[in-house]
Amino acid sequence: MTSLTGKNSIAGQWSAQGDETFTSVDPRTKQPGDVQFHNATKAEIDHAVNEAAAAFQETRHYPASKLADFLDTAAEEIEKLREELVETADYETGLGSPRLPGELTRTTSQLKAFASLLREGSYVDAIIDTAMPDRQPAPRPDLRRMLIPIGPVAVFSASNFPFAFATAGGDTASAFAAGCPVIVKGHPGHPATTELFTVALNNAVKACDFPAGFFSMVQGNGVEVGQNLVQHPLLEAVGFTGSLRGGRALYDSAAQRPRPIPVYAEMGSVNPFVIMPGAIEARGDSLVDTLVGSATLGAGQFCTNPGLVLILESDATQDFIQRYTAAMQAKQPEVMLNASIESGLARAVEQTVGAGGVDLLTGGEVVDGGGFCYAHTVMQTNSTTFRSNPKLHEEHFGPVTLFITCPTLDDLRLTLNTLEGQLTGTIQAEADEVEAARPVAEALRERVGRLIWNGVPTGVEVVYSQQHGGPYPATTAPGTTSVGMTAIKRFMRPLAYQSIPSPLLPDALKDENPLGILRIVNNEYTREPIQS
Amino acid sequence: MTSLTGKNSIAGQWSAQGDETFTSVDPRTKQPGDVQFHNATKAEIDHAVNEAAAAFQETRHYPASKLADFLDTAAEEIEKLREELVETADYETGLGSPRLPGELTRTTSQLKAFASLLREGSYVDAIIDTAMPDRQPAPRPDLRRMLIPIGPVAVFSASNFPFAFATAGGDTASAFAAGCPVIVKGHPGHPATTELFTVALNNAVKACDFPAGFFSMVQGNGVEVGQNLVQHPLLEAVGFTGSLRGGRALYDSAAQRPRPIPVYAEMGSVNPFVIMPGAIEARGDSLVDTLVGSATLGAGQFCTNPGLVLILESDATQDFIQRYTAAMQAKQPEVMLNASIESGLARAVEQTVGAGGVDLLTGGEVVDGGGFCYAHTVMQTNSTTFRSNPKLHEEHFGPVTLFITCPTLDDLRLTLNTLEGQLTGTIQAEADEVEAARPVAEALRERVGRLIWNGVPTGVEVVYSQQHGGPYPATTAPGTTSVGMTAIKRFMRPLAYQSIPSPLLPDALKDENPLGILRIVNNEYTREPIQS
Repeated sequence: MTSLTGKNSIAGQWSAQGDETFTSVDPRTKQPGDVQFHNATKAEIDHAVNEAAAAFQETRHYPASKLADFLDTAAEEIEKLREELVETADYETGLGSPRLPGELTRTTSQLKAFASLLREGSYVDAIIDTAMPDRQPAPRPDLRRMLIPIGPVAVFSASNFPFAFATAGGDTASAFAAGCPVIVKGHPGHPATTELFTVALNNAVKACDFPAGFFSMVQGNGVEVGQNLVQHPLLEAVGFTGSLRGGRALYDSAAQRPRPIPVYAEMGSVNPFVIMPGAIEARGDSLVDTLVGSATLGAGQFCTNPGLVLILESDATQDFIQRYTAAMQAKQPEVMLNASIESGLARAVEQTVGAGGVDLLTGGEVVDGGGFCYAHTVMQTNSTTFRSNPKLHEEHFGPVTLFITCPTLDDLRLTLNTLEGQLTGTIQAEADEVEAARPVAEALRERVGRLIWNGVPTGVEVVYSQQHGGPYPATTAPGTTSVGMTAIKRFMRPLAYQSIPSPLLPDALKDENPLGILRIVNNEYTREPIQS
Repeated sequence: MTSLTGKNSIAGQWSAQGDETFTSVDPRTKQPGDVQFHNATKAEIDHAVNEAAAAFQETRHYPASKLADFLDTAAEEIEKLREELVETADYETGLGSPRLPGELTRTTSQLKAFASLLREGSYVDAIIDTAMPDRQPAPRPDLRRMLIPIGPVAVFSASNFPFAFATAGGDTASAFAAGCPVIVKGHPGHPATTELFTVALNNAVKACDFPAGFFSMVQGNGVEVGQNLVQHPLLEAVGFTGSLRGGRALYDSAAQRPRPIPVYAEMGSVNPFVIMPGAIEARGDSLVDTLVGSATLGAGQFCTNPGLVLILESDATQDFIQRYTAAMQAKQPEVMLNASIESGLARAVEQTVGAGGVDLLTGGEVVDGGGFCYAHTVMQTNSTTFRSNPKLHEEHFGPVTLFITCPTLDDLRLTLNTLEGQLTGTIQAEADEVEAARPVAEALRERVGRLIWNGVPTGVEVVYSQQHGGPYPATTAPGTTSVGMTAIKRFMRPLAYQSIPSPLLPDALKDENPLGILRIVNNEYTREPIQS
């Protein structure tokens, strides 16, 4: 087993200059762990970002193939620690099996998927317009544009995905793939897991002979470490997954810098889930199972949890809600991640139940016992009540479902129109309800990053076409995604080269097209070289 | 001739609810015009954005071909007013001929270029990953992603490009192309020109039977109109071209909204211009002409004006600077746009000359006479002085050149490293200096949006590959451009469709690929339909 240091890792060196420490907490027993983890000091953070900026002077020149090799090596180094990682993360998060082994596979697959993207190479979006020396009234110069990496990136780990949205998760993988050094701010909920990933990534940096500053990791259990990181003058961008409060604080901080930088914050969602009457009639029982499965997955601690179910008023609907409530009640609640998530959920449900016009059908309380745990909870209200109270639109982060009954489909559509931005929106319907559901789909389309038909929002495939994002407050940057291959674009920016001699052009823009990538040349897509 | 109303245009209706008015000022005589233009009231702005949001409910469904027809019609309607536009803008800006006729051609060409982009259709970046029903441990759903329009956009006109970066300029063209309604905030320096463009765009809206709210125009000569616009809850994005102070104020305002929105502000630059010794030796005289031409174009009022010339210390350099100074002195200065640009330039030059260690070689004063005018100005300092005083790094918006002499090429490179973000960077060098210039190119690359070899930064080609942007403070959004075909991406966001039935899918994502666009299907670029 790897012996834990409790230290930060600054450009490959373990460092513990500060006096403030914290520990892991076993969510199943609420007992603190043995290792003291050190909050990073301002000097350590400064050192990490300076080293990242120095490393970038090298890595910005690396060919995509070299970055791809690094990503593959990182995946291998992580796999070497698989058993330890799963065991440690289980101790720190209670997420168990098969979830954690599956999430680890997803994490290493993601690194390898970016490696494939780099080896194909067209992701740099090369666009070329060749010179027109005889154009009147003035010659047109040669112009060639591609994406280049932006520089040091800070990544804030999420509590609820200790692998896939954490130290070596999607933000880190896509920033590395772009050629950007990364400074990870570990989540205080799983510092030991963070340290193990740090060991793996440091090994990869060494094995590939990358500059040590390409990766650093800082621990911290308060807001100060993160704020110091975001305020560093040499930082170029921030990736974050977590709460609206935390994400907005970082966004505000970055926007108020003398030189503002982008914050790509994914901040969760209530993920409206619309059930059409035909679906209830045709397959109500299986829908109950499907929805319970999605709403309670990982103790409901998913940013894509279907928290809001919109459904037409009817006897069949009332029967469906009763069956769903019974199934939620019957299922054993799982351990939650930590004390603040448990207490935050308790506050949120209390606020909703106390709002007036909302019925608590089951749950609504912390489950006593050894660990952090909250009862599977079902609430119900009608669309008029819901629309009139914005407080009811807020997320309950946990195994909680709020049913909204609507008198008509048009009323349901109007209710959707009052929602804020969402990561996802789902429609459950029968084949003969496609046209009836069209206005619902159109209303959801304007509010979500991903629109789902007869599926569940939990489970975010790592594929090229994935869009894990959405209008604010789902994210601070609706034009981007934190999952899928296009996530890399967040950490790149376009640069145009005008009349630059071939020896000074990157390979992606040379006449010969040595990388064989797809380019737009004089408005045509082609992999052909340019005949000069 | 069109008779001017002095009113705002709210969804096709002329409106003048407010009491505050202002007039055009003839920069050649400083005399006010006859027409009183009305500042838009908060109620008028509210009405405009509400109508834009209502229009968007229709235009978001428009096929690209319909939007393309609108752009072509807008170009035609503008051409119908060509003579009036050129005459009016000349009266309001003093920019004269051939500049204004050329800029008008560029403006209508830009609208037509976006129409071509839409007809080709691949700009929606369609990416498809088909289902894998047999995948273990769980089936993979079908996922299809494309860009969709974001909604109402506010566009702030620039003073120095009354056509190309104004009412129907690049921001408006790209937002329209995306399918987004636009509310233009006219620049107070050319309100009559703004009104004429408004007539043309309103005609296009009518001719194409678009909803009237697709375009509105508000006038305003203070900050309040712009702030009211940016704070409107239904606004989705802002395009701006102008000063750092103005752009940053809008950025801050938008970031502090309850729901922040992106601000794409292009805020100017000092555009470092590096001359290698070989170039001075081989073609010093022609370089003097080239540089004078670029630095004085449009009275130097270009955001791409080469304001900072970095050059190696030598006798040949000193001789070059003398010849340049003589040529600037000999050339007749042109009229400037308005009083605030003239006084702002006078303040900026005064600050630089007063900073210590800076020699004023010629100019440095307002030119007395009928109009707004500032003498062609040349200043010189050394790299040590320059690096030690950030005030010297600020823009002089006008016909002003600051030479920085550097003892060595390495010192020059280090000096570049102290610069803030820039729209452009230029290197003038001979063919045998390519390798010597490499470190200069690498240093510039990290700071600019466009890197130029043996050209001048003024003159921004409207081509697919153009990148008119750059790191802050050149812009607030270095990942985007305000010129060139990719400018459209600023006003779109990705949406993923998961397992959505074909009738509810946009054409761009249907199996049959009815638009024949290039798509990424299961990681391969193809225009082929998907075999189901």
